[in-house]
Amino acid sequence: MKEFENILIFGLGLIGGSIAKKLKNSSYSGQVYGFDKDPKILQKANNQNLILNDSIHNFEYSNDLLVVFCVPVLSFRNALETALSFLPKEQVIFTDTLSTKAHVFEILNTDYQEVLNNFVLSHPIAGSEKSSLEFSNNELFNKKVSVISPHEHNSQGDIDRVINFWNQLGSSTKLLSYQEHDLIFSKTSHLPHVISYALTESLFNSLNDETFNFSGGSLEDYTRIASSDPIMWKDILISNNQNIINSINDFEKSLNKLKELIINKDEKALVDFLSKTKTLRDNSVANN
Amino acid sequence: MKEFENILIFGLGLIGGSIAKKLKNSSYSGQVYGFDKDPKILQKANNQNLILNDSIHNFEYSNDLLVVFCVPVLSFRNALETALSFLPKEQVIFTDTLSTKAHVFEILNTDYQEVLNNFVLSHPIAGSEKSSLEFSNNELFNKKVSVISPHEHNSQGDIDRVINFWNQLGSSTKLLSYQEHDLIFSKTSHLPHVISYALTESLFNSLNDETFNFSGGSLEDYTRIASSDPIMWKDILISNNQNIINSINDFEKSLNKLKELIINKDEKALVDFLSKTKTLRDNSVANN
Repeated sequence: MKEFENILIFGLGLIGGSIAKKLKNSSYSGQVYGFDKDPKILQKANNQNLILNDSIHNFEYSNDLLVVFCVPVLSFRNALETALSFLPKEQVIFTDTLSTKAHVFEILNTDYQEVLNNFVLSHPIAGSEKSSLEFSNNELFNKKVSVISPHEHNSQGDIDRVINFWNQLGSSTKLLSYQEHDLIFSKTSHLPHVISYALTESLFNSLNDETFNFSGGSLEDYTRIASSDPIMWKDILISNNQNIINSINDFEKSLNKLKELIINKDEKALVDFLSKTKTLRDNSVANN
Repeated sequence: MKEFENILIFGLGLIGGSIAKKLKNSSYSGQVYGFDKDPKILQKANNQNLILNDSIHNFEYSNDLLVVFCVPVLSFRNALETALSFLPKEQVIFTDTLSTKAHVFEILNTDYQEVLNNFVLSHPIAGSEKSSLEFSNNELFNKKVSVISPHEHNSQGDIDRVINFWNQLGSSTKLLSYQEHDLIFSKTSHLPHVISYALTESLFNSLNDETFNFSGGSLEDYTRIASSDPIMWKDILISNNQNIINSINDFEKSLNKLKELIINKDEKALVDFLSKTKTLRDNSVANN
């Protein structure tokens, strides 16, 4: 598989920075460029030899370019506008790393038909509650899964090259339609974040500075994702709104079912509930 | 501080087994005995040279004994009855490792005044979702905190010896009244378990075997405690009933507040909510 001769990383935070670091520390032989709306970050990435350019002005376009968008979901439209203002529309393939996919597809489908064909939606399932270039690292995608969400306008050739790109970064790939992606991740990722934020708020409301005084470590694990980047997560909660609301409602049904058993001190039904979830989780994690 | 000449561990699961393994691998020079309602477990612990006796019948009492109860909370009354049937009531100090404390205190205060004075309530904040003797290990209490909940009938001498016992096992100690203990842990431990069980049930209801197919690892962390022992947790949920229900209600208020912001797509209020919880958690974890 032919690798891209040029790669432009749009947004040099945790994800964009980690892509640049991995490309630098791999056998990739092409040119890596970067862009960030913060000129200081761009300069920093250039100083670290992660990207060839040190401003938007000395980015020299050449043929066969992959543009990777690594920005908060609701900044995507602006980022795309900026990119299109200085990039040609031919011999460019686009991809992204954004956590919700229907929102991106709708923008392309509604207002950017000219790039839709060449835009392969993707989402690496990797991250950290520590955001920004500073915390990026070249191992971030190692042994992780990147979800590719091809749509009907994509060519198989473009899809394959984007899959190859993620493989070069160390991750395997799985395919999901953008609708399936948003539905599944509203439950397995977005809902746990919502819960973690709400739990953290609720604990501090009652315990304040005492919250972590008596924890054995699992509370830190459990609230860790409440330290995630607020802008990134505000954008996810808004752009995948309806799926997330449905997931919260489903979770509240399960929580209320369990609360009823606790209120009623129903020993048998409690053991059944806890045993069932334990078995489901144990078997499922063991199979993955 | 004088160490106990004899220690009897009542209940040889994860916690009891870990105490026995640590005593064996430390400078402790006294005798270690054990009891478990399952004779096979007792035999196994004896085969591994963790305890001196291989049945209830060859436990030879001698002076200066610490009895440590390591059983599910709602099994405590039976365990105490069994212990009192063959132990003398003098020259014995009692402690426990149970996750809720008011329940234990009430049983002692109501029906076992004769042991109340010599019973120092304690709770090591250590554990694992993997229960049973098989998973016990001598490092379990290392650098952990054990909460001691002295009551007005305890002597300072007994309290100090129990504190020393936990220090020998590698943990530091903190003091909390049994009421404060149950209130705080209903929020920092019991509530996250309730949430994890409900989340796991909710995910499997909609995604079934797909639940962990697209997870990057944090969902496994987040649902890990739903693999905890069902009997142990049923007992906690029932014995700390009212505190846990209050904690669930508080959490539901925070969750509904956040859900409203998501429904209304209120970008500013969402950023405020997420930023506030991030700051609270980051500062608090950094200070602990």
